Formats: sequence, structure tokens, C-alpha cells
Amino acid sequence: MDTTTLYQHSTLADLTAGLFSGTLPVSQLLQHGNTGIGTGDGLDGELIILDGQVNQITGDGEVRELAPKDMVPFANVHFADYQSIGEYQKMDKDETLAKIAQEKIWNNIFYSFMLKGNFTRVKTRSVHKQKQPYPSLAQAAQKQGVFERENISGQMLGYYAPSLYNGVAVGGFHYHFISDDHLFGGHVLDFELNQASLGLQMFDNLVQHFPVESVDFMNFDYSQHHDIAEQISHAEK
Amino acid sequence: MDTTTLYQHSTLADLTAGLFSGTLPVSQLLQHGNTGIGTGDGLDGELIILDGQVNQITGDGEVRELAPKDMVPFANVHFADYQSIGEYQKMDKDETLAKIAQEKIWNNIFYSFMLKGNFTRVKTRSVHKQKQPYPSLAQAAQKQGVFERENISGQMLGYYAPSLYNGVAVGGFHYHFISDDHLFGGHVLDFELNQASLGLQMFDNLVQHFPVESVDFMNFDYSQHHDIAEQISHAEK
Repeated sequence: MDTTTLYQHSTLADLTAGLFSGTLPVSQLLQHGNTGIGTGDGLDGELIILDGQVNQITGDGEVRELAPKDMVPFANVHFADYQSIGEYQKMDKDETLAKIAQEKIWNNIFYSFMLKGNFTRVKTRSVHKQKQPYPSLAQAAQKQGVFERENISGQMLGYYAPSLYNGVAVGGFHYHFISDDHLFGGHVLDFELNQASLGLQMFDNLVQHFPVESVDFMNFDYSQHHDIAEQISHAEK
Repeated sequence: MDTTTLYQHSTLADLTAGLFSGTLPVSQLLQHGNTGIGTGDGLDGELIILDGQVNQITGDGEVRELAPKDMVPFANVHFADYQSIGEYQKMDKDETLAKIAQEKIWNNIFYSFMLKGNFTRVKTRSVHKQKQPYPSLAQAAQKQGVFERENISGQMLGYYAPSLYNGVAVGGFHYHFISDDHLFGGHVLDFELNQASLGLQMFDNLVQHFPVESVDFMNFDYSQHHDIAEQISHAEK
């Protein structure tokens, strides 16, 4: 079990361009990790993968579990082996991310963080399943569900990508949440933590897997879509 | 032996920034492929790897072989399994690259090409080994050796990277040459082919390996080097 490798299926640029159809079954994705984030077939909600269980938070805010045969268009996974860093207390989002970024000199590599504990407030969004012909990610995100809970316990799982990889991944931090009772979660827009333990895991390798069996992906003409990096920064912040 | 994966040690951005010290021994590099291109320790020449033999063309134009313990700062390797495409005849560089790009609809993935045959003219460059404190790649490239041969037989080995990966790799084509008599080679600047067979090999995966044990790499502040993409396009064309 390789705990030094981050696996990514497809790229954020592909998702931004509207390539929402699932191109990898969950059963294959989980061969490359038991922990991660992603989205469902047709941009169907936000995924947070913990202990090999693929939790999906739909655009209506429901939490379900994906089956091995379900397809995903985009996901990051790794085998969890977090280094325990310490306890964080009473910080808002900006303070938390700034402190995580200062724990290690890891700006030039991919790494993951895991915050487990209770949060004074968590605000999430989750995208709705789209129908073909697919809109762009930015258009789909305009109708996303936005949810908020106060005083909630759960896990916040995220990845850091070096800015060089913006477009391939989300440059900087990208993180999802799920409550311990599995009734709330999504792509995190904002939060304040009350008390949470921080784990960090660095990666020596990024395995970028391309959906080479997808005709839509192989034929997509990126030269007609110069605004993809800009769209990413709008849709994923 | 995985023939669907391209392995890259370090990134072109790191090289462009002047991180020239070798960070991976040849013995480890060759575990990930028997075919590839790269540069030597201290930006010591141009590498072209064929059948597990790491040929180095120095800044003086000499061809040597690297030993397993020699270190490299940057390289791409894969296990060769080329699909035979056909014979190319009497084309210049631009015609050849344009034709290769049209053989397959592979614009959105990494692939390799191999041209074997004889060339009316091949013009190469090779960089000189640098001493610390290292200059930038652009500065080092100003004093590179430039060489030219006419009517020469050999192999031209290259990679295509999608434009999304410019900076991580060289967006577009990046290729090196070695003559059959091993007396001439380098990073190709220009050529005219007389007759050559073309092989192509696509990759489902890019494994990006980071030099995590290099203090210079881990501490490098890219936020102070906004011009790296521009420098790449100058130094690698």
C-alpha cells in the first residue's frame, strides 16, 4: 500500500470544460486509495471518501453512498497515513488555512490535510446532477445548493496543490466536509472551527490518470477554451 | 512492465529556476523506464535513454554513458512499446511535427514519438555543466554548444505534453537525438529528415515524482519567480 502517492482521475480543466460524464468506476478508483474527494457522474454532488466508503452529498444536501459500479468523472484519492500535528482551537477559515500552510515547508509538493473535531459553523455547497448537453462548471455552479450548520462535529479532508498545477488541480487548498452523523457535508465554502485535530500527509508522487477511453475527453478542443484557468478560480473558491 | 505510464522526475519549472543538482540516481530512474530524455547533474548535457542505456551528450558535443550511481536533476522515462505508424520522407521540422500531431487525436494526453532513419540535416544544442551558485536555465542556455551534421542516421526520441502542463513539462514537443554511431546528438533545434520510420506510444498516466529529499527544491520560493513559464518557452524552443 503506497502512502506516498496522490492519484488523480481526470483534471479540473476537464471538469471546468463541462466533461461531467463518469469515466472511472468507483471499484477502480478505490484501488488507488481509501481517502479522497471528487464528484459524481454528471457532476452529481460532492464526494468525500473515508475508509474506502464513497460518501456523496447531493445538490439537495442528502448524503448517500456510491456503489462500486458507479462512475466518477473526477476524483483524488490516496491511502491515508496522516502525521498527527496537533490541536487547533477557535480559528476561522483564513486563520486555519494560513496555519496549515505554515506547519511544513511543503509549498512545492502535493499534500493532504485532515481536520477532525467540532466546528462552530460550516458552510458548504453541493452541485446538482446535470443533464446532457452539459453546461460549463461555472454555469452549473450558479444553481448549486448552499448549506450551513452550527456546532457540528465531523471531518474536513483537503488537498494542497502547488500553483504550478492550477488547472490540472485546484492550485492551493481544495477540501470537502462530512458530519459525523452523515447528515451534512459538501464542498466547503467557509467555516469556523472550535476544536479539531490536524493530520498532514505529504506525497512524493502525483499519478495523473487520463480518461483515455472517453471520446468526449480525447476529442475536446482546449484551444477553443482559453478561459479555463479563470473559470476554475471562480467555480472552486 | 507498465507501458502506459510516463514517469517524470522533477519539473521543467524547477530546472528553469536553476535547480540543477542531481536528485535521483540513474539506477532508480531506470526502474521506471528504459527509454527517455533528461539532463545530467549540474545541467551536464542532454540525455537520451535507449534500451536502458543513458547516453549523455555534453556541452562539448561528446557522447558518454552515465553510470547507475550518477544523479539526474530532471528526466522523463517510460518502457518502450511503440506502435508502428509508417515511413516519413523528405520533410523539414515543421512539416514532421505537424504530421505527427495529426496521426492520432492525442492532443489532450502525453505521448512519445520515435523517428528512426536518416536525416539530411540535424542541428542540436547541448548545455554545459554548471557550477554553484547556479544561474537560471535561460542564462546557462546562452553558452550552450550548438552542433550540426548532414546525412546522418540515428534516433529522435520525443514527448508531447498537453498545453495544460506547460511549466510542469514542455508544452508541445520536446525531443533529443543520437546518431547510430554515438558520435553526435543533443536537444534538437532543427532538422530535415530524408527517410525515417515513425513509432508512437500513448500514456494513460503521468507519474510526477518530486525531489522531496532536496532541501533546495523544498525551500524554493516560486512566488518570487513569476516569469518561469516565459523562460521555459525561451530556453526549450
